[in-house]
Amino acid sequence: MSHVDTPLEHDDRMEFQLERLILFTDAVFAIAITLLVIEIKVPELHHVQSERAVMIATLNLLPKFIGFLVAFFVIAIYWTAHHRVFRFVHRYTTGLIWLNIVFLLSIVLMPFTAAFQGDYPTMKTPWILYACCVIFTGLMQVRLQVYIRNPARGLTLRHHSTHPDLDPFRPLISVLIFSLSLVLSAVGFILAAKFTLLLIWPFMVLYNRYRYRPLLRAYEQRFGVAA
Amino acid sequence: MSHVDTPLEHDDRMEFQLERLILFTDAVFAIAITLLVIEIKVPELHHVQSERAVMIATLNLLPKFIGFLVAFFVIAIYWTAHHRVFRFVHRYTTGLIWLNIVFLLSIVLMPFTAAFQGDYPTMKTPWILYACCVIFTGLMQVRLQVYIRNPARGLTLRHHSTHPDLDPFRPLISVLIFSLSLVLSAVGFILAAKFTLLLIWPFMVLYNRYRYRPLLRAYEQRFGVAA
Amino acid sequence: MSHVDTPLEHDDRMEFQLERLILFTDAVFAIAITLLVIEIKVPELHHVQSERAVMIATLNLLPKFIGFLVAFFVIAIYWTAHHRVFRFVHRYTTGLIWLNIVFLLSIVLMPFTAAFQGDYPTMKTPWILYACCVIFTGLMQVRLQVYIRNPARGLTLRHHSTHPDLDPFRPLISVLIFSLSLVLSAVGFILAAKFTLLLIWPFMVLYNRYRYRPLLRAYEQRFGVAA
Amino acid sequence: MSHVDTPLEHDDRMEFQLERLILFTDAVFAIAITLLVIEIKVPELHHVQSERAVMIATLNLLPKFIGFLVAFFVIAIYWTAHHRVFRFVHRYTTGLIWLNIVFLLSIVLMPFTAAFQGDYPTMKTPWILYACCVIFTGLMQVRLQVYIRNPARGLTLRHHSTHPDLDPFRPLISVLIFSLSLVLSAVGFILAAKFTLLLIWPFMVLYNRYRYRPLLRAYEQRFGVAA
Repeated sequence: MSHVDTPLEHDDRMEFQLERLILFTDAVFAIAITLLVIEIKVPELHHVQSERAVMIATLNLLPKFIGFLVAFFVIAIYWTAHHRVFRFVHRYTTGLIWLNIVFLLSIVLMPFTAAFQGDYPTMKTPWILYACCVIFTGLMQVRLQVYIRNPARGLTLRHHSTHPDLDPFRPLISVLIFSLSLVLSAVGFILAAKFTLLLIWPFMVLYNRYRYRPLLRAYEQRFGVAA
Repeated sequence: MSHVDTPLEHDDRMEFQLERLILFTDAVFAIAITLLVIEIKVPELHHVQSERAVMIATLNLLPKFIGFLVAFFVIAIYWTAHHRVFRFVHRYTTGLIWLNIVFLLSIVLMPFTAAFQGDYPTMKTPWILYACCVIFTGLMQVRLQVYIRNPARGLTLRHHSTHPDLDPFRPLISVLIFSLSLVLSAVGFILAAKFTLLLIWPFMVLYNRYRYRPLLRAYEQRFGVAA
Repeated sequence: MSHVDTPLEHDDRMEFQLERLILFTDAVFAIAITLLVIEIKVPELHHVQSERAVMIATLNLLPKFIGFLVAFFVIAIYWTAHHRVFRFVHRYTTGLIWLNIVFLLSIVLMPFTAAFQGDYPTMKTPWILYACCVIFTGLMQVRLQVYIRNPARGLTLRHHSTHPDLDPFRPLISVLIFSLSLVLSAVGFILAAKFTLLLIWPFMVLYNRYRYRPLLRAYEQRFGVAA
Repeated sequence: MSHVDTPLEHDDRMEFQLERLILFTDAVFAIAITLLVIEIKVPELHHVQSERAVMIATLNLLPKFIGFLVAFFVIAIYWTAHHRVFRFVHRYTTGLIWLNIVFLLSIVLMPFTAAFQGDYPTMKTPWILYACCVIFTGLMQVRLQVYIRNPARGLTLRHHSTHPDLDPFRPLISVLIFSLSLVLSAVGFILAAKFTLLLIWPFMVLYNRYRYRPLLRAYEQRFGVAA
């Protein structure tokens, strides 16, 4: 820990400063994903404390539990996306910090919107709210990737800007699916709106085959390295 | 923080990316283990606020408190297991990330299942639910270790794959004990089901003597290093 | 991990010890910012569970939601300030640890004061309490920066003490605005008190133009480096 | 991230494994200290929503708020102690991990015991429970320091074992004060029991003058370095 007054700027702390931004993000993700469960309240049995009553109360938690599972994996998917994207980031700017904070805003809201739709599984409004929240997260993910891959900003090594893992079309898939789900819910097909989420898998398969792999091949041919 | 366009891939970030995965895991563990206590609600005395009433209310918390202690040590045991196993991991894959996330799902559920069984200490259903949750965690621990030690995946140094700390039989002990406890509870012996947990100690002693130590000796003889 | 008894002091751990202080701070920030949302309770509809009732209940959450947004960005602003300031810190003292802990005290209080004013958006007392909390945070931020930039303490490289990012006048802006808001609220103009917060933007613009940029130019001329 | 099979053991991960243990500890501390505030519930005014009613409800929170402040600083003191002590630790053992987990158990309990005594500020039982919790933390702190400074275990550099910051008498001060407070509370002097905590300051001053400084002088004379 030298105190020699060499004129080195805070660039020497760049790496830790960036790690701090990322670990703060991870802490917010970890808390949001763990708080999901405190919205599943232990059932209270005021009148009859029979084995049968407990079992029925447990089964009644099922819609809440399914809502919890969906929300858990939605947050997990965005965490893995953040983890995948930020491995290219070597520098930060004030702009990146604030884009990341607005991205986190949408994550922080999820324990509320997820619990709301878990409490009213047959209602439109909570699902619309939840879908809006996920769409907002997806759009912020797109915005982050467009910002990070922009070679003019110099946040990544220059050739990384064409890496398929920074392709902003991937986060658009969940934006598309949740928008479709939102519309279906708004016109009254609530069950269909929820099953729409299952479309994410085939869309991801199509995306991987017809966009990700060609991009990766192009990237590898140009830079001669296995990603 | 050089911006020279040397064609190094994100492998240079592998170490931090792996640390990020691990620290995210630790944050989830830390939150889950700390949230256990918010399920022990401060007793509310609406009618008589006497010293005696407070003491009785405190004593009534005892089953909840014992449930808290069990859940605290169950989560702590799985954290130490994760800490012990991941010291061998030098690389990550998308598969490892997702196995780890499903493992975390079972940890995140514990504040709920532990509070549920703490609130209804004499009922079957909550204990069965709790046992299922721990069994699921144990099986995911087995799955993680089988995945990590597989030399074909190259996540560890090759000779580490035979290290006894990666032996998938250890996590099977708690799976076995909790399965036994589940069966006992299902057929109605709830108290016995809970005391079954104490069997973990003798089983661990037997495991250490007849499997861990022989494996360790074999490992040390083969690679000539003290583990 | 050598055990050689070379007489090196714990200075060799200084870097990690400082990181530990910072990451602990970040964890507290992350929890405080995420806990804000658990104060927005899912509306309970006891009587009529109609689509209309859910929508009205959702709209009734609007003041709480606006309060959440304000609190989210207030905490985010102080996190970015901490992130900006601590990049200069190369050493810690017991004094710095305790100043930082008192600073965190004001952050930890925010989920409560923010929820209080979100529950009673038309009342004076909760807003005064909230403003006091933010003013306290701002003053602690000033105190931290004065402490850190003091060359006698040797926490930063000597020439950093004149870096404009350590200028203690910037955190005074929010102190000023929230004090004005507090006074307006105390004399009864509650709506005006809340809109006063929007003054932060023009004040920041003025601050940047007439103080930050001149300080930065002076700093760069003297030390010949781009900050 | 080489995959060369050089026979290096997991010792090369020792530093990160130790950091992981410490950062997990910090996360638990950070959550416990932030959860304290969620026990101060926003007052609910069912009948009259006047400015006066809000102010009275706020003032009624005062005992809870004082309890929160005490608990905040108790946890903060133990965090700084952990931070001070673990800077000497260069290796970990399974024993250290488990001592640390039992230490964390007492920290995790504090949001509950602190909220309990904050809710019943004039009752004996909650204060006795809270004092027991802090005494337990203090004794675990002593146990940790005795374990860490034991040269036979080789967790620190050998000469560090006599460093005054590892002196196990310091944590005994809070054990002593809280024991005194517990006795005073048990015999009915609840107010006196609480003011007893103020004795920590003079005792710390005496400790520093008559034990810490002589130990430090002896340490510096022997090893010729400024601590």
